[in-house]
Amino acid sequence: MFHIVFLAGKLNRGLSVVDSYKLLKEGKELTEEEIFLASALGWCIEWLQAYFIVLDDIMDGSHTRRGQPCWFRLPQIGMIAANDGLVLRNHVCRILKNHFRGTSYYVDLLDLFNEVEFQTASGQMIDLITTIEGEKDLSKYSLPLHRRIVQFKTSYYSFYLPVACALLMAGENLKNHIDVKNILVDMGIYFQVQDDYLDCFGAPEVIGKVGTDIEDFKCSWLVVKALECCNEEQKKLLYENYGKADPACVAKVKELYNALDLQGVFTQFESESYEKLIKSIESHSNKAVQAVLKSFLGKIYKRQK
Amino acid sequence: MFHIVFLAGKLNRGLSVVDSYKLLKEGKELTEEEIFLASALGWCIEWLQAYFIVLDDIMDGSHTRRGQPCWFRLPQIGMIAANDGLVLRNHVCRILKNHFRGTSYYVDLLDLFNEVEFQTASGQMIDLITTIEGEKDLSKYSLPLHRRIVQFKTSYYSFYLPVACALLMAGENLKNHIDVKNILVDMGIYFQVQDDYLDCFGAPEVIGKVGTDIEDFKCSWLVVKALECCNEEQKKLLYENYGKADPACVAKVKELYNALDLQGVFTQFESESYEKLIKSIESHSNKAVQAVLKSFLGKIYKRQK
Repeated sequence: MFHIVFLAGKLNRGLSVVDSYKLLKEGKELTEEEIFLASALGWCIEWLQAYFIVLDDIMDGSHTRRGQPCWFRLPQIGMIAANDGLVLRNHVCRILKNHFRGTSYYVDLLDLFNEVEFQTASGQMIDLITTIEGEKDLSKYSLPLHRRIVQFKTSYYSFYLPVACALLMAGENLKNHIDVKNILVDMGIYFQVQDDYLDCFGAPEVIGKVGTDIEDFKCSWLVVKALECCNEEQKKLLYENYGKADPACVAKVKELYNALDLQGVFTQFESESYEKLIKSIESHSNKAVQAVLKSFLGKIYKRQK
Repeated sequence: MFHIVFLAGKLNRGLSVVDSYKLLKEGKELTEEEIFLASALGWCIEWLQAYFIVLDDIMDGSHTRRGQPCWFRLPQIGMIAANDGLVLRNHVCRILKNHFRGTSYYVDLLDLFNEVEFQTASGQMIDLITTIEGEKDLSKYSLPLHRRIVQFKTSYYSFYLPVACALLMAGENLKNHIDVKNILVDMGIYFQVQDDYLDCFGAPEVIGKVGTDIEDFKCSWLVVKALECCNEEQKKLLYENYGKADPACVAKVKELYNALDLQGVFTQFESESYEKLIKSIESHSNKAVQAVLKSFLGKIYKRQK
């Protein structure tokens, strides 16, 4: 299980705790203890994600994850996987207790992980309710809904959580960093829009999978944008072909995306988002925090996978 | 959902926080604030249990719970139930944060709930691994295994947790109450043995369900005791008939239980357990804690349902 969940992953979220903490320390050499603790927090985020993934795969009825069968698909596992997910989650608290129980920010770490977990479960709930089987209804899809799902399901745990961990370790009070949270939430949304774009327009050999958002009736940024700028006739075409496994239907949707120049719309979104984010970051008073946020943005800007 | 999970339940665990806290206060009238806080902790335990129940039913493939269809069996729910379980769980932390964030024992409450949740998930894991489909093997069943499953899966959250909550509210340090934990773990095991006994020998109209432990190949105290005191021939009969849905097989197992006088063995276990528990309780130095433990024991001793 360790192999399946972690080694096939990129550990980006976990590693970014260490990176962020380094930047907050402004080039001061970290002690072994500091590196260890930042890494421990990074692993907490990876365990948290492992827990989400194991349960999400059950709920979505997925077949593979990172090129391997989903944990619950293994013959001797089945629904026991749900409990394995809980055990993974419990290890977040165990790591925190073992290594941070004596620190001044222990209780803030517990509150942070609890809050982020709740936000993620809420995002998953909105997502599941929206894409519920037998209720395929494109009229529910909109930019605000897309934003809400991504904000809760992805942004908080993937973008805000690593930086918040680093801030706590650096002795900061998270209440003073609401602006950091907002910027990271927006960055997470930008990241997910890229993901939605690459699912359709990315090269499968580069992104490592063949996208199926159209077949799966996903509330993707692309379909939301298409609904926003299409005419009545195109809308009819979308309603008739979106969310069907038939390759002919998928091809028609992709054709429409091209007719609406969604690649161009995306390129514009990408540069506008980047400029907006840079502006927000540069208006932040703390240079070290600016560096953390810019480093995050640099990692994802114009990514191809 | 609220209706299904809670109102059909007896709220014993939740209510016992208030009862225990009252006894710890030795008859002093509780303030409204104290009653509110003890009740809030009681509700945390009920939410925690609701979360376990929703997920357990998925994992066990159950059909009904407390006379209603399981949550995941409802047509529009399905596997989304797993996420609903997580959302229930997240509310434990939310209640704790809303009402206890400022108290001196807030961090101890978080640690307590985290630890108990991990213990319960571990118990569920042992139970699932033991009774895994396609691996029905009676030779794995033994008294120590039965004890281990019950201790982790049931005792900690049902017996220790309510009292531990009350102790924290009363300003106690849980590290000074390891003996209380041990007594409550034993009481939980005694409770589960009663449960196993009633599943087979209780009156369905009194216990409110028709027991199916034999059909379900459960690691029940009865089968463990039967294995312990049967001869080779009887053992063969058990191996051939335990865990089969066929009523003829079930009848043969029950016949064997009668031949081995398991009702008598149970009655003896019940009085021995009671005496042992009373002795442990009375050796406790604190009279108020004694009262709490005796009240718990009084509620379950010789219960018929």
